[in-house]
Amino acid sequence: MNIVIIGGVAAGAKAAAKVKRLLPDSSVKIFTSDTHVSYSSCGLPYYIQGNFTDYRTLLVRSVEEFKQDGIDVFLEHEVTKINPNEHNILVKNKSEAELVSYDRLIIATGARPIVPNIKGNQLKNVFTLRRIEDGIDIRTKMLSSKSAVIVGAGYIGMELLEAFVKNRLKVTVIEKNKFIMPNFDDDISDLIKKRLESYTEGDFEFITGEGVSEILGCGEFATGIKTESGKIIDADFIVMTTGVVPNVEIAQNSGIEIGETGAIKVDKLMRTSIDDIYACGDCAEKMHIVSGKNVWIPLGSTANKEGRCAAINVAGGYSEFEGVLGSAVSRCLNTTMSMTGLSEKEALKLGFSPTSALVLKTDKVAFMPQASDITLKVIADKVTGLLLGAQAIGAVGADKRINALTSALIGHLTVEEYSSNDFTYSPPYSTTIDPLLNAMQILCKRISRHC
Amino acid sequence: MNIVIIGGVAAGAKAAAKVKRLLPDSSVKIFTSDTHVSYSSCGLPYYIQGNFTDYRTLLVRSVEEFKQDGIDVFLEHEVTKINPNEHNILVKNKSEAELVSYDRLIIATGARPIVPNIKGNQLKNVFTLRRIEDGIDIRTKMLSSKSAVIVGAGYIGMELLEAFVKNRLKVTVIEKNKFIMPNFDDDISDLIKKRLESYTEGDFEFITGEGVSEILGCGEFATGIKTESGKIIDADFIVMTTGVVPNVEIAQNSGIEIGETGAIKVDKLMRTSIDDIYACGDCAEKMHIVSGKNVWIPLGSTANKEGRCAAINVAGGYSEFEGVLGSAVSRCLNTTMSMTGLSEKEALKLGFSPTSALVLKTDKVAFMPQASDITLKVIADKVTGLLLGAQAIGAVGADKRINALTSALIGHLTVEEYSSNDFTYSPPYSTTIDPLLNAMQILCKRISRHC
Repeated sequence: MNIVIIGGVAAGAKAAAKVKRLLPDSSVKIFTSDTHVSYSSCGLPYYIQGNFTDYRTLLVRSVEEFKQDGIDVFLEHEVTKINPNEHNILVKNKSEAELVSYDRLIIATGARPIVPNIKGNQLKNVFTLRRIEDGIDIRTKMLSSKSAVIVGAGYIGMELLEAFVKNRLKVTVIEKNKFIMPNFDDDISDLIKKRLESYTEGDFEFITGEGVSEILGCGEFATGIKTESGKIIDADFIVMTTGVVPNVEIAQNSGIEIGETGAIKVDKLMRTSIDDIYACGDCAEKMHIVSGKNVWIPLGSTANKEGRCAAINVAGGYSEFEGVLGSAVSRCLNTTMSMTGLSEKEALKLGFSPTSALVLKTDKVAFMPQASDITLKVIADKVTGLLLGAQAIGAVGADKRINALTSALIGHLTVEEYSSNDFTYSPPYSTTIDPLLNAMQILCKRISRHC
Repeated sequence: MNIVIIGGVAAGAKAAAKVKRLLPDSSVKIFTSDTHVSYSSCGLPYYIQGNFTDYRTLLVRSVEEFKQDGIDVFLEHEVTKINPNEHNILVKNKSEAELVSYDRLIIATGARPIVPNIKGNQLKNVFTLRRIEDGIDIRTKMLSSKSAVIVGAGYIGMELLEAFVKNRLKVTVIEKNKFIMPNFDDDISDLIKKRLESYTEGDFEFITGEGVSEILGCGEFATGIKTESGKIIDADFIVMTTGVVPNVEIAQNSGIEIGETGAIKVDKLMRTSIDDIYACGDCAEKMHIVSGKNVWIPLGSTANKEGRCAAINVAGGYSEFEGVLGSAVSRCLNTTMSMTGLSEKEALKLGFSPTSALVLKTDKVAFMPQASDITLKVIADKVTGLLLGAQAIGAVGADKRINALTSALIGHLTVEEYSSNDFTYSPPYSTTIDPLLNAMQILCKRISRHC
């Protein structure tokens, strides 16, 4: 069997390793336009921050290691066309192009940053963060800089804020939505902002509800931004963390169906609409387990699981990928921000009848050293009583409260069923009634007579 | 309505507060033989350790605070008899005795330590830990001591080991079972011991598979122990953490049914076998959610929930207590020890067909600072595929992996269903595939063809 994989960061690398293990006699090739393969892009903010100094720490598996396992990796090889009828792809490397045939093809082309179409966005010192070299460039620039602007206050923007503040830069974060971290409900986003603003060991500010109208420059270099209201903010460099889009163009051009979300449509076996072609990772659409709708939530943990699932099916096994909950966590300075399932605003849009409970508690018994605060919001449907999602911010451990909910979403538990949960308790770890259970009991009272 | 509660540590205190809130016009009285009411007995090891120096920190609510809420607390009042037909109880305070009538009675008499019936167990400097004054006595003695013996290596024994080691005592822990922490499966207990023995900043040792035959003394003071094999261990004091029994005598003498476990039999509404009498907390039997069997697992978190449930029903509302999973966590030095559900050995005894997977992983991506190791064992039934339980030891966060499993046990999920879980991921918090999911995938392969 001749297996070709396009893309090799998370899903592609995982699929290659897994399929080779399942079919040791097969030929497995990875083609990637990237300069590196199999790396932790989620780790880039921590490399930039300086938690470790060698970027190679981020490499999960090198080209040589793949080679030793019998997998050929072709870096800086761009796949420009898929010919499903001929079962081959057109690969370009520098000036050369060649046709490579496959029995099974796995598309794992990932996603790429998008930047708003504004004046100055092509200037030097304007960065996006996706690949290893982006991380190296940003770190290098940061080390010789005193100030930065981050455009966009989502996960990556916030992780870079931490990195820059810890390196003593003056940082401005500008977010066109009214609230930072707009994936969260507004009440939680507001609390995140307040909590971050209480962090005193840094020089940073947020501008919200306002976009960037122009990137200012001097010659070929950016020197700052102009906001929509005309405010000018000087900065030594600018990072655009304004979102990502799936890399679907080659799939689309070969006739593979694209889903309503703009990512490649796949079934539970990670098969695309064309025989013998699979897709996984950030380029593929996912099914949301709570809403049952197709969504596009690109996350490294999902990519990894989808790569594994695709590999099993490509190898002739059987594995279903059940979908996602959109579970995520990010850290910025003193604040853990984590969520799973639907937000209250999403649930409302999707036609649910959401209600929620919000509690602010200590994460451990208050008399213990290092007890810290944690805010939890839990969301359920008033009509069915089913849990829909949760958001948690505050101390380290907020994320683990979220993970204590994901299997309830998988199992479609009601709030009432969840309220009888039996968590571990000891003073160094939690309160007698964990904040999560506390929130659930309050929510239960809003929904059921039996709470 | 005239509500009387016997006992006021966790379940009793919670029940009193809740019932008064639900029925503000009722009379609520707590009678307790204890010198304190409403305190965190789970916090005593941390008071002894010196995490805080005033024992009053452990008091959740004082007699005065109860009084302000209209609840009368009678300390050092021993209830010696319940007369169900007359709806009254006999209460003794010093030399006086009086009959106190009730409309509804809640028994929350808790549990007490038991010590083996060996020579010397009545000597001074031999302690047990249950009440506030036990904690004060042990701390006082510890501060003037150089060595201690702890008899019994369960949760409390291990928490005291930490306290004594942090206070630079030489400590010997003796456990008659072959393994320490015998609630865990032997393989995990063995790993706990190895991990603790790798902790270098203390002078302590474990003796296992051997009991204490005698407590040695000089005059009225204990000076050490003699083991069953004749070994003599000198120590300035001894703490017996050899188990607890439920305080059921007054219930039993009044004709209330005692369950097969030796604790008071209650239904889901916390009602005993006699009308208008409820029981909750450590004196009451519980139903195990996984096995469906009656068990006696006395834990503070359960007591709290049962107290709340009893109060709601006493007040004329309706609340069912669904049962327990036996979820617990304890810390000793560098090691978090946590479990939920059935152990493999328990499952086997109960007639399940258990199989398990054990993984040793880092708790965060290895390149992050403070990445630490975590060992997880997950257990499921081979025939049904249902999850039965889990055990986790190692870094802080091991307990939160256990809490990420409890709702799966509540929801009766199979390993296969759980394997599609969607956890949060970011390098400071976990690995791309969390160790728990990793363990679950391995377990799934042992059970299902679809993994």
